[in-house]
Amino acid sequence: MTGTVERAGLIDDVESRLRRVARTVRRSMLDAMPDGEPVRWLYGPMREYPSRPGKALRPALCLSAGRAFGADPNELLGIATAIELLHNAFLVHDDIADGSEMRRGRPTLASTHGMAAALNAGDGLAIVASGVLRRATRTLDRDLADLVWGEFDTMALRTLEGQAIEVGWQIDNVEDVGPEDYLNLIMHKTCWYTTIHPLRVGAIVGSRGTVDLAPLVRFGFHFGAAFQIRDDLLNLVGDERAYGKEILGDLYEGKRTLALVHLLSSARGADLDLVRDHLRRSRAERSADTVRAIRELMDTYGSIAFTIEYAEGILMVAEQYFEQAFADAQPGPDLDFLRALVPYVWARWR
Amino acid sequence: MTGTVERAGLIDDVESRLRRVARTVRRSMLDAMPDGEPVRWLYGPMREYPSRPGKALRPALCLSAGRAFGADPNELLGIATAIELLHNAFLVHDDIADGSEMRRGRPTLASTHGMAAALNAGDGLAIVASGVLRRATRTLDRDLADLVWGEFDTMALRTLEGQAIEVGWQIDNVEDVGPEDYLNLIMHKTCWYTTIHPLRVGAIVGSRGTVDLAPLVRFGFHFGAAFQIRDDLLNLVGDERAYGKEILGDLYEGKRTLALVHLLSSARGADLDLVRDHLRRSRAERSADTVRAIRELMDTYGSIAFTIEYAEGILMVAEQYFEQAFADAQPGPDLDFLRALVPYVWARWR
Repeated sequence: MTGTVERAGLIDDVESRLRRVARTVRRSMLDAMPDGEPVRWLYGPMREYPSRPGKALRPALCLSAGRAFGADPNELLGIATAIELLHNAFLVHDDIADGSEMRRGRPTLASTHGMAAALNAGDGLAIVASGVLRRATRTLDRDLADLVWGEFDTMALRTLEGQAIEVGWQIDNVEDVGPEDYLNLIMHKTCWYTTIHPLRVGAIVGSRGTVDLAPLVRFGFHFGAAFQIRDDLLNLVGDERAYGKEILGDLYEGKRTLALVHLLSSARGADLDLVRDHLRRSRAERSADTVRAIRELMDTYGSIAFTIEYAEGILMVAEQYFEQAFADAQPGPDLDFLRALVPYVWARWR
Repeated sequence: MTGTVERAGLIDDVESRLRRVARTVRRSMLDAMPDGEPVRWLYGPMREYPSRPGKALRPALCLSAGRAFGADPNELLGIATAIELLHNAFLVHDDIADGSEMRRGRPTLASTHGMAAALNAGDGLAIVASGVLRRATRTLDRDLADLVWGEFDTMALRTLEGQAIEVGWQIDNVEDVGPEDYLNLIMHKTCWYTTIHPLRVGAIVGSRGTVDLAPLVRFGFHFGAAFQIRDDLLNLVGDERAYGKEILGDLYEGKRTLALVHLLSSARGADLDLVRDHLRRSRAERSADTVRAIRELMDTYGSIAFTIEYAEGILMVAEQYFEQAFADAQPGPDLDFLRALVPYVWARWR
């Protein structure tokens, strides 16, 4: 375990590098936006999320993994930009599906422009992402380009599958969800497109398709799971300004997070009835008082502590898999950055 | 002008050919669907619209234009399937944005599975469409494949632009819309992806990129406009069972169709106030009585007659442009079918 001072330095280094990537990728995303009409109802809304400060974790992973496996940095920027654009497309549609109000510290597209305009903006971002990826892969050998495209399609479908499972659990008010169901959910919903895909596609381009993908997937899964569980925790214990989304929003939405899964399996009597009654209601019928009461039950029953312990176990496994996943990568600042990202995702507040 | 008997024969021929294409493309679409989970919340809903009987106009245009310009039929089926899949993706999202209840004679996805599941299903169909197009273009020369992909991205963006303009007019309750604004709207919203793109991409593949696209665009625009105006008319005067959508649904949604544009510019006094008041309300606040009253005003002020006359003018121009657009095409059943489609789209009831 690193000390407090050392850890603070690590976080600063990681964040300053992420900020650099975010700036570059933001410029690249906005440059890719079509210069057409209607600005007011389509192209204006499409620029909003990409203009807001994002973490840039996904493009940073792709760029660093790619370079660590020998890629020319120029051939990766377009691919990293396409990943971040598709991420923005997902965010726009997820915010509609979830009825979310805040994203990256500002109102969601649906809450300012209406659902229909937000729906179109999300579709538009996905189309622009494809166009960017197409231009980026034109310089690659055709088989390698096909490989990258296959990865992209798989990633997009995995993410949708996860999103659909989560929505389905809420629609059907599924209560018998265990930690392993939760892990399967976030493997699809988060890990594939947040960590596994950016790492894989960077490594594939860098190694010209020769890399062993299995250990990368294992590492990416554990790393991405730690990232998602941290996200769930920030939604419960975070600071809204740093986090950029509504605190306790997941409880309003009835999302089956690890803490809620734990609470459902450990709460008893009137406490369990309270949670179940809350989940049976529609979002509009859920009260702030009940949300706060459930949040307190999570302390009473140790659901927060359980979540932290669970995630720390996953994080240790991720650290073990790291060396195996990058055994054939070149040592240097890219590999150091990737290694530092593992504790970073667990220490972050945004 | 052809006689009634001759015209009935023409409609039968066109419809039997469209049915054949619909069967082939439906099978091809369903074969392309991933065989994964969750079926209940994603892959099941994704199969619903492609399983319902559609007109198959778009794939039929692509296949026939392609063969008329010399394409091998096998190399076009995947492209035609991708176009129809993207069309289905658009329908799913449009039905969400418009709050529609019926599609192809059955409830919309959003009304049976909820908005969030429908949103995911539309995204999924678009991803599968990309995958199908990717496999279909793999056998083409790489430059030709890039050309096809460029066409696909342009088409998708044009459609979104049109969809966004239409939604924007409704959100801002725009009243000063003339026939030329309406034509610009449907050029984007309908013509590009319904007629222009399928014809262009078929011709590009058939001619190996050597075809002159300008006359095809001119023909496709007028042909597509006649198709859309017919669709608007069927929404006002059609038979719900054949049409498959709610009759008068456009009036509930406040869509700026040519008939409504005409009524807004010709109604006077209390009649105009009635229309304006209706349009200012949200969809939920619009009454069936007012919708019927507005429908009657369209007869009183000659808005239906104006729309018919306007469309017949456009149809004549389409017929004139047809010969120019297909001057280099091979005579035969494909060219005959394409020629017969022009009067067909204006005579159709579904």
